[in-house]
Amino acid sequence: MSGNSFGTIFRITTFGESHGEALGLVIDGCPSGFALDLDAIQKEMDRRRPGGTKHGTSRNESDIIHVLSGLYEGRTTGSPIAMVLFNENQNSKDYGKLKDVFRPGHADFTYEKKWGIRDPRGGGRSSGRETSARVAAGAVAKQILSSRGVRIDAGVRAIGGIAAEGTDFVPPFSPPLFTVSSENDDRMLRMIEETRAEGDSLGGIVECRIRGLQAGIGEPCFDKLDALLAHAMLSIGAVKGIEFGLGFRAADVKGSVDNDQMDETGFLSNNAGGILGGISTGEEIVFRIAVKPTPSISREQRTVDRDNRPVELRIEGRHDPLIVVRILPVVEAMAALVVLDSMLVDEAERSLR
Amino acid sequence: MSGNSFGTIFRITTFGESHGEALGLVIDGCPSGFALDLDAIQKEMDRRRPGGTKHGTSRNESDIIHVLSGLYEGRTTGSPIAMVLFNENQNSKDYGKLKDVFRPGHADFTYEKKWGIRDPRGGGRSSGRETSARVAAGAVAKQILSSRGVRIDAGVRAIGGIAAEGTDFVPPFSPPLFTVSSENDDRMLRMIEETRAEGDSLGGIVECRIRGLQAGIGEPCFDKLDALLAHAMLSIGAVKGIEFGLGFRAADVKGSVDNDQMDETGFLSNNAGGILGGISTGEEIVFRIAVKPTPSISREQRTVDRDNRPVELRIEGRHDPLIVVRILPVVEAMAALVVLDSMLVDEAERSLR
Amino acid sequence: MSGNSFGTIFRITTFGESHGEALGLVIDGCPSGFALDLDAIQKEMDRRRPGGTKHGTSRNESDIIHVLSGLYEGRTTGSPIAMVLFNENQNSKDYGKLKDVFRPGHADFTYEKKWGIRDPRGGGRSSGRETSARVAAGAVAKQILSSRGVRIDAGVRAIGGIAAEGTDFVPPFSPPLFTVSSENDDRMLRMIEETRAEGDSLGGIVECRIRGLQAGIGEPCFDKLDALLAHAMLSIGAVKGIEFGLGFRAADVKGSVDNDQMDETGFLSNNAGGILGGISTGEEIVFRIAVKPTPSISREQRTVDRDNRPVELRIEGRHDPLIVVRILPVVEAMAALVVLDSMLVDEAERSLR
Amino acid sequence: MSGNSFGTIFRITTFGESHGEALGLVIDGCPSGFALDLDAIQKEMDRRRPGGTKHGTSRNESDIIHVLSGLYEGRTTGSPIAMVLFNENQNSKDYGKLKDVFRPGHADFTYEKKWGIRDPRGGGRSSGRETSARVAAGAVAKQILSSRGVRIDAGVRAIGGIAAEGTDFVPPFSPPLFTVSSENDDRMLRMIEETRAEGDSLGGIVECRIRGLQAGIGEPCFDKLDALLAHAMLSIGAVKGIEFGLGFRAADVKGSVDNDQMDETGFLSNNAGGILGGISTGEEIVFRIAVKPTPSISREQRTVDRDNRPVELRIEGRHDPLIVVRILPVVEAMAALVVLDSMLVDEAERSLR
Repeated sequence: MSGNSFGTIFRITTFGESHGEALGLVIDGCPSGFALDLDAIQKEMDRRRPGGTKHGTSRNESDIIHVLSGLYEGRTTGSPIAMVLFNENQNSKDYGKLKDVFRPGHADFTYEKKWGIRDPRGGGRSSGRETSARVAAGAVAKQILSSRGVRIDAGVRAIGGIAAEGTDFVPPFSPPLFTVSSENDDRMLRMIEETRAEGDSLGGIVECRIRGLQAGIGEPCFDKLDALLAHAMLSIGAVKGIEFGLGFRAADVKGSVDNDQMDETGFLSNNAGGILGGISTGEEIVFRIAVKPTPSISREQRTVDRDNRPVELRIEGRHDPLIVVRILPVVEAMAALVVLDSMLVDEAERSLR
Repeated sequence: MSGNSFGTIFRITTFGESHGEALGLVIDGCPSGFALDLDAIQKEMDRRRPGGTKHGTSRNESDIIHVLSGLYEGRTTGSPIAMVLFNENQNSKDYGKLKDVFRPGHADFTYEKKWGIRDPRGGGRSSGRETSARVAAGAVAKQILSSRGVRIDAGVRAIGGIAAEGTDFVPPFSPPLFTVSSENDDRMLRMIEETRAEGDSLGGIVECRIRGLQAGIGEPCFDKLDALLAHAMLSIGAVKGIEFGLGFRAADVKGSVDNDQMDETGFLSNNAGGILGGISTGEEIVFRIAVKPTPSISREQRTVDRDNRPVELRIEGRHDPLIVVRILPVVEAMAALVVLDSMLVDEAERSLR
Repeated sequence: MSGNSFGTIFRITTFGESHGEALGLVIDGCPSGFALDLDAIQKEMDRRRPGGTKHGTSRNESDIIHVLSGLYEGRTTGSPIAMVLFNENQNSKDYGKLKDVFRPGHADFTYEKKWGIRDPRGGGRSSGRETSARVAAGAVAKQILSSRGVRIDAGVRAIGGIAAEGTDFVPPFSPPLFTVSSENDDRMLRMIEETRAEGDSLGGIVECRIRGLQAGIGEPCFDKLDALLAHAMLSIGAVKGIEFGLGFRAADVKGSVDNDQMDETGFLSNNAGGILGGISTGEEIVFRIAVKPTPSISREQRTVDRDNRPVELRIEGRHDPLIVVRILPVVEAMAALVVLDSMLVDEAERSLR
Repeated sequence: MSGNSFGTIFRITTFGESHGEALGLVIDGCPSGFALDLDAIQKEMDRRRPGGTKHGTSRNESDIIHVLSGLYEGRTTGSPIAMVLFNENQNSKDYGKLKDVFRPGHADFTYEKKWGIRDPRGGGRSSGRETSARVAAGAVAKQILSSRGVRIDAGVRAIGGIAAEGTDFVPPFSPPLFTVSSENDDRMLRMIEETRAEGDSLGGIVECRIRGLQAGIGEPCFDKLDALLAHAMLSIGAVKGIEFGLGFRAADVKGSVDNDQMDETGFLSNNAGGILGGISTGEEIVFRIAVKPTPSISREQRTVDRDNRPVELRIEGRHDPLIVVRILPVVEAMAALVVLDSMLVDEAERSLR
C-alpha cells in the first residue's frame, strides 16, 4: 500500500534503509522446483556495488545475499523466498551533519513533509541502496526468464550529453562504462574525471532491450506492458523519463513512417519497440531512460534546514560522479520482474480455455 | 488482473469495446457526500469527442453519460458509481473488410496472438474509444480535486515536429489546437491539412501540469508518484514516452545545474518537475508525453492477414489525422485519477498517528 | 478498496443499489474463447428471484440480464464482461416511511455511521438485491467449472431448527424447499406458514458441496482455500457462521477420530471437508453456513430514528419469511467464484516450472 | 498472490518455514511516528511459545524477534518494518523418517500435489510455526489499536467438548488454560492428561471479543468486516469454523428474537455480534472459532507414502495434545490486523469529504 511491493503473481516486497540493520526482500509466487543459482545472484549484486567499476565510490557496503527461506536443497519450493543484506556502517557519522538539512535533489524535504519523521542516516526508502534488494529479486527473475529463452540487457547510450557511437547493442558490454558502443568511451572518461574534480556529477541515457519474448504477452488496457515497464523504470530513483521504440521522435514523424508494416516474414521495422496496444509483438522490446546526475555533489549549494533557515551546503566525502553505470543491473532487474510477472499472468489467462 | 482496473482507494474499472453494445466504468472508493456536477462530466466527454474540434472525424459516436448507481439526490453515497455510454454503430460494416487483416500500428496482431479470438469490429480494449470511460471517471476525480485546490491542465506542446512557441502555459487553452502557446498554430494547421490530404497522420507532444498539490503526496519506493503517472500515461494507447521536469535533458546537464536549490522562500527552480524521491514537493508537477501519429491512414501499407498472406492495405473512410488534441482530456483524466488516489492513500497513512 | 471487487484473476466488480437505476457487474480475467450459455445464466437468476419459489415475496423485481460487453458471436473475448439488471421500482414509495428510521437487523444504522449519507430507498450495498450481480457472475464461473468437471451444489440442511433428515445430498434438490433430504419438508412448510402468519421470519442452515475439484488447489497461508470460501460466504448478508467438514464438532473429538487416514485407495474419511493446510485434497469440499432469519418482519419492534428518538416500528408489506432458499444460488455463485479463481491462480503458479 | 500477504493499507507479508534458516515478516503501511514497545511484542511471542504454558511441548524454538528495518530511535518511520526469528534446529533429524510419508491431518499430501516438491523438514507454510510471524505483526497492530481505545481478547470457551462455565469473559484470563471462566478447568486438565497419556490430542472452541471499536468501520459488500475476520481466522491452520454473535443458533430462532432492537440508549441486545451489513455497530464484536485437535498424535495411523504404498505411522516425540491455548495470541493478532487495516481504509474513505 505504501508501495513497497511490486508485481501480481511474481510479487516482491522490499524493506530496509541505507543505514538500518539490514535490507531485504521477499519474493512471493516464484515457480516451484527451480534450481536457483545463488552465485549468479551474487554476481548481479556485484554489478550494482559502488566498487564494482572503477568509477564507483570507495564506500564499503555489504552486498552479500543471505537466503532465509523458500529453498530446499537448492530448489525453490513455492514458499516465499526471503533474502537479506546486512548493513555494515549503520551508525555512520557521515550523515550526522546532514541531520537537519534538506539536501538538494534528494527526498529529504519531501520525506519530512510526508511522514513528519525522517531517519537522517540516509535516503530512506528513496535511497539507491534500496535497489540492492531489487537487483537480488531481479536476478531470480532473470534466471527463470533465461530458462525460457528471454534475455534482458541494458547498456549506456549516453553520458553527460556524449552519445555512444559505432556498431551497437551487442551485449555483454565492457567495463568500465558498459556503453552500447565504445567509440566515445575515452571522451566520456575524460569528462567523468573532469566532473569528479569539479565536485560535480553527470547523468546519462540507458537503453534496455528484451529479446526472445513471445508475442502476446501484456494487457491491452491499464496494465499495458509498456505502462508496467514505465512504472518500473520511473520507480528507480534517478530516472526522469522513458521512451519506447522511436519514442519522442515518433511525435515528429508521420504515420506512414511510424507504422511498422509486415510481410510474410514478419515486421519490416520496429518503431513500436516491440509492443502494440500494450502487448508484445515478438520483436525486441526497446526502451531508453533518462538518468539525472547524482544529486550528491561536493560543490556548494543553497538549501534550508528543518526550521527553514538558509544553509550553504557542501556535501563532504567521495561521491559517485555518475550512477548511470551502476543503474544498469537495476534496470535489467526491474524489466525482468515486469516481464516474468506478465508471462505468469498470461499463463493464468490462457489456461482453462 | 487483466488490468481493466486502476487505482488503490479511488479505483476504477472500465469495460466495453468500440463496437459492442456499450462502454462503461465503475468507480469504487469515491468519497461520500460529494455533490457531483454531471454537466461538467459531460463537458469533459465532449472535449474527447471526435467532432469536438474542427479536426476530428465525422463519425457519430455517442458520448452521452448515463449514471446507473452511486448517487442519491445528486450526491455520492460511497457506493460504487457506474456509468455507461451506449454505442450507436455497433454493427458497423466499415470494419468488415478488415476482419482478417492486421492493421499496421494497431493491436490487431498482438490481440490475435494473446487471445486467439478477436472482435474484428474495432480495436477492442486498446481502442481509443475505451478512453471515454477514463475521461468520465477522471471528470469525477477532477471535481473532487478542484474542491481541494488542485488543478490539472494539459496542452499541446508540439505537432508533427512543430513546437508551440511564445509565452506559454496559461490555461485554458484555445481551440482548435489547444497549444500551450499559439504563435505557431497557423503553421501547424497547414501541416495538418497537407497531411490529411496525403492520407497520412501526425503525432505530437503533450504537456501536463498539476497545480496546487501539497508537498508530501506519493510514495518513495515502487509507487513513486512519477512512476504512477508514467504508468497512467503509457496506458493511453498512442503514448510512446514520458518525461518529468527537465526530463531527457537532465541526462545532459551536471548535478549543479539539475539540482533544485532552496532558500527560505522555497525552491529556486523546478527541474525535478515537482517530485523528489517519488513524493510531491509542493511545486508544479510538470510532465510531457510523446504521442505517436494515428496509425489509421489511407495510404497503402503492407501487412498480412490471419493466414500470414501478404496484403496491400488501404484503410478507407475519414480518419483523424491527429489525436494529439483529443488526447488532452484523457491525459488530464488519468493524471487526476493518480493524484486523487495518491491523496486518499496518503490520508490513510497520515491517520492514526 | 471499498470492497466491491472480489477475486484475483477471475475478478468481479459489482455495483448498484436495490432502488437505483440498475445493478450490474464486470468480470475481468475471464478465459477467452468460451461459448457462454446466456440462458443458463438467466436460469440461475430465476433461482434467486423472490417469485422463484412459492415462498418468495410477490415483489416484481426485474432480473433480466443484459450483456453489455466482452462477447463476440457468443464467445468470451478476454475483454471484461459487463452485465446489467435494470431496476423497475426505483422510486418506490414503500420505503418513504423508513427514510429516517433504523430498521433492526438491517445495515441502516451502520451505513449512517460510516458514510454520513444514506440512500433510504433500500439496503444499499448490503441489500439482498446486490446478490443478483453475484449470481450472474457466478453463473459464468459455474459454466467454466462445469466444462472442467467441477460441480457445485447447495441445499437446505435445516430451517428454523428443523433439520432435513433421510438419505441426503443427491442434487438436484426439489422445490419448494430444496432440502438436502425431504423427509421433514412438511414440518418445515407448516412452520414457515405459521411464522408468516405471525409476521415473523426464520433462518436456517445451508450446506454446499464442491465435487470434482482436483487435489492441489489453494494456498497454504493467508489465502487458504477455506479462508477464501469463508470470506466469500460471510460476505453474503445474512450469513452468521461457516464450518468445514466436521466443523464445530471437530472441537469435541480427539485427533485419532478427526484425522482422515489414508490407504492406497485414498482417504478413508473426509472430516477435513476436502481441504488440508488450505489446499484441496481431491475429496468433496463440504461446508455449512448459518443463515439468520430475515430481519424485515411485520411485528412491532423498538428502534430509533436519525435523531435518536425512540420509534415503535412495524414494517409493512409482504416480506419473505425466509431467505434460506433464495440464498442457495448465491452460495453456489460465491463458491464458484472462489474455486475458479483459485484454479486460475494455481495455473499461473504451476506454469514456467 | 500465493497469498503470503494480508491487508490493504496495514499490509503484512510473512515468510519462512518451520525448519529453514529463519521466519519473518514485513509490515507495510504502518503509521509513522509511533513509539513501538518491543518488549510488548516479545511478550506476545512468548504467549505463543510451546513452553509458554505447562501444556506446551518441550521443543526449544527460538522466538526472539529481531527488528531489521522501519524504526528510528524507537519510532516507526513509515518505512516497512521487517522482523525475523532465526530457527535453531533447522536441520532436525526428527523429521527424517517422515520425509516420504503423508502425515494424516497435515498438509503433506496437498503440498506434494500442489508444488510437486516439498520441504520434508516440517509443515512448510501451513506449519504452526508460521503463525509466529503473525503474532509479531499483530502485536504491532494491537499497540496502535490500544492507543485508540480498541482492545482485543481471546479466551478458551471449550476443550474437548468440556465447556467453560461460570461468570465469564473478564480478561485477562489465567494460565494454564486461559478459559473465559475457570470453573471447569480441573475437568479439562484431567482430560488433557489422559489424552496425552493415550498419545492422542484435543480440540476446542476459542472466543474473541473486540471492544472499543467505533461504529462505522467495515465495508458493506465483499469485504464485510465479518467476512475479513472469517478470512483471517480460517487462515489459521487448525480452524474449522467461525460464528459471529448468536452464530449457528441464529439459524434456529425467529427474526423477532434475533433482531437487535434499539432505544435511545443504544442496542438492547447484541445477537449480531457487533456487525450489521458488514459494518461495526459500536457494540462488542464477538466471534467463536472451532479448533480441531492437533493432528500430530503418537497413536498408530494408516497413511501412504509418496509412492502410494500403505504405511502404519506412529509419530514419535512429545507433541502438544492441544493447541487451543497457544492459538489465542494468533487469534488476537489476526483480529488486530483486520481491525486496524479496516480503520485505516475507513480513514481514507472518510477523507476529502
